[in-house]
Amino acid sequence: MQPLWIRELHEHHDEIVTLHGWVHQHRSSGKIQFVQLRDGTGFVQGVVVKEEVTEELYAKVSSLTQETSVLVTGLVRADDRAPSGVELLVKDLEIVHKTVDYPITPKEHGVDFLMDHRHLWIRAPRQRAVLKIRAEISKAIRAYLDGEGFTQVDPPILTPSSCEGTTNLFHTKYFEEDAYLTQSGQLYMEAAAMALGRVYSFGPTFRAEKSKTRRHLIEFWMIEPEMAYCTHEDSLKIQEGLLQAVVRHVLTNCSLELKVLGRDVTKLERVLEPFARITYDEAIALLRQKGHTITWGEDFGSPDETAIAEHFDRPVFVERYPASIKAFYMKPDPARPEVVLCADLLAPEGYGEIIGGSQRIDDADLLLERFKEHELSETDYAWYMDLRRYGSVPHAGFGLGLERTIAWICGLEHVRETITFPRLLYRMYP
Amino acid sequence: MQPLWIRELHEHHDEIVTLHGWVHQHRSSGKIQFVQLRDGTGFVQGVVVKEEVTEELYAKVSSLTQETSVLVTGLVRADDRAPSGVELLVKDLEIVHKTVDYPITPKEHGVDFLMDHRHLWIRAPRQRAVLKIRAEISKAIRAYLDGEGFTQVDPPILTPSSCEGTTNLFHTKYFEEDAYLTQSGQLYMEAAAMALGRVYSFGPTFRAEKSKTRRHLIEFWMIEPEMAYCTHEDSLKIQEGLLQAVVRHVLTNCSLELKVLGRDVTKLERVLEPFARITYDEAIALLRQKGHTITWGEDFGSPDETAIAEHFDRPVFVERYPASIKAFYMKPDPARPEVVLCADLLAPEGYGEIIGGSQRIDDADLLLERFKEHELSETDYAWYMDLRRYGSVPHAGFGLGLERTIAWICGLEHVRETITFPRLLYRMYP
Repeated sequence: MQPLWIRELHEHHDEIVTLHGWVHQHRSSGKIQFVQLRDGTGFVQGVVVKEEVTEELYAKVSSLTQETSVLVTGLVRADDRAPSGVELLVKDLEIVHKTVDYPITPKEHGVDFLMDHRHLWIRAPRQRAVLKIRAEISKAIRAYLDGEGFTQVDPPILTPSSCEGTTNLFHTKYFEEDAYLTQSGQLYMEAAAMALGRVYSFGPTFRAEKSKTRRHLIEFWMIEPEMAYCTHEDSLKIQEGLLQAVVRHVLTNCSLELKVLGRDVTKLERVLEPFARITYDEAIALLRQKGHTITWGEDFGSPDETAIAEHFDRPVFVERYPASIKAFYMKPDPARPEVVLCADLLAPEGYGEIIGGSQRIDDADLLLERFKEHELSETDYAWYMDLRRYGSVPHAGFGLGLERTIAWICGLEHVRETITFPRLLYRMYP
Repeated sequence: MQPLWIRELHEHHDEIVTLHGWVHQHRSSGKIQFVQLRDGTGFVQGVVVKEEVTEELYAKVSSLTQETSVLVTGLVRADDRAPSGVELLVKDLEIVHKTVDYPITPKEHGVDFLMDHRHLWIRAPRQRAVLKIRAEISKAIRAYLDGEGFTQVDPPILTPSSCEGTTNLFHTKYFEEDAYLTQSGQLYMEAAAMALGRVYSFGPTFRAEKSKTRRHLIEFWMIEPEMAYCTHEDSLKIQEGLLQAVVRHVLTNCSLELKVLGRDVTKLERVLEPFARITYDEAIALLRQKGHTITWGEDFGSPDETAIAEHFDRPVFVERYPASIKAFYMKPDPARPEVVLCADLLAPEGYGEIIGGSQRIDDADLLLERFKEHELSETDYAWYMDLRRYGSVPHAGFGLGLERTIAWICGLEHVRETITFPRLLYRMYP
């Protein structure tokens, strides 16, 4: 008999099936034993009734330890109380590999211990739920962008230089040259947008920052859409549509996982309404009202972002920052050139900035001026300049941080749980 | 009027529409001008009839240069000879940005010149076709694996050590530690498979190899599925199913692009039949028959692979290589321990190995023996060892090289055209 996955059991009511998996938990009440089984696709309770099985089988089940791998045959029965909707009346059980002293027990463990055992910790229901939601969020992002006519493009990871300084970059030798791990594929995506219209990247980016906060990973994944013939305003619409599609997909497809995480879904449902929107100027006024000492021209710190976000029950776009605190490639607002056509999207509940985007400078002369102001090499970026020389068009784009989005949607304390093997300050193991 | 994309025009027969794009080609025959327009989503011919438009407009169109960006309004007319099925009778045209001396002209250019202008070269119809097919292949891979119950998992790029030596690895400092760019996420994916059942990665991998062949990139993308409770045989079935699904998807969805590339699709259609399969032993016999000097125990070189592949009109699995020439983690064939339960899949038409896979060692003692033989650090790989200590199960997986798969499906001479900004020996620009 071909073994089934636990997620398939609900289609096999009242059938005898075989499944393979691991013992997650095990308890006995004298004449009956309950074996919580997991196989990566779900959890199901196996019930072993003493008077219905051989003594040998009952004893074998009694000896089961956490994370022992097993092949189980049994009858699928409806069970309304079970998250999977079924339970398994065990008829036979074979031990594949007996586990002795599994390090992660149901008792409390410290974070360092769990991180040292991350390769095993990911088997726990909460961790599995987050990783499933991560995969579903990724899927929803692709589905939305593909549906809007975007083409996925993979920009390079190894890059010869960086437009934002090399302080926070990982350096390596590329044969005789110096190379850096990418912090953003945006400039390359601009070239791709001129070739393919609407494009997006979906890949790892790196920041060698000595910061240890609950919002930072050293290695993190970004989605960077870039659109030819697109204004700042058009871009905001895509951003709102994208995030709403993602939240809707997770609410529809991950209800079990959200329940495991104890996520308050009413907070997510509010995301389906239009997002809030304020200007940088209004944000400054709001912060001062709330007693923050900040003046026009300063960038927001993490507490500022949290205060702004807390003012709204939905994600909020903060638009039109001063040019001086934003990247060199952002297009000035024609009506007011001291601010740029950009927006950061702040997630609710204190999860901070999850999107940063802008319309890009499309005028060659202005870009050249910015190059000089920022002391960027015209040789290194000659190709980027070419995009304004040959058929320049209005274009815009943004970057969505995958891990922060996951942390927010899952309601996690820390981004370290959003990826299988997080890279943190001083942590690269396992 | 909201501009349309060229791919949408076929739904707007006999309507007046506006589109934005770039001038790809332009020719005149006195009383009529033809402007080939592109917008990334396709190509369409704009027709400008002298006696139907103002003198001013006709002159403006006459002045159009290659890659000038334009906003065009016109009537959509059916045209059976056009790949898009329509042409545009131009009523109005606005120049967004005039291009002077576009460097890539319809004349022949050398490879180095084109690679130096890769940021512009990707606008060419052939390059665009390859990048579209790349995106569609990626999509088809995900759709197949998602449909088979796999969960996408992103393994780390920065890793503390490598099981295959550090000679061909890119090195960087990870704060105080040494780190290397991943060559394969497999070991991490094995841990993930024990947590999630069936998993796959889809991301960049790196090889600092000083080889300059038409099959090698320094930075390339790999898809690495890993399956718990899976044998070598099960894995081959998934591999065959996956590649057939990919080829079927491309044949169905990319016929225009395959035509642009001049691809002989009958060769691709043969992939939909069951793949060929031979053992390493049979491959050695076949090669000797063909006059190659190779003895049992040696690995195949590129000419050997080509000779084996040419013997078949479909992809061919070469199974059960000698343990001594394969990776330490591969499970020995119980019936014949000098060979391992592995297979390489060779693409037809000389494109070489596109998949390498195996069942993995699941026995802790045997794996420990291999660690010693290969002088691998038990401390560095303690976590990998744990997978055999806690609920070990039979498991298998494989790695699919994305760029070689694209090169083969597109029928390209060289892998450098399969990715937007290829990283090659001594080439990191743009």
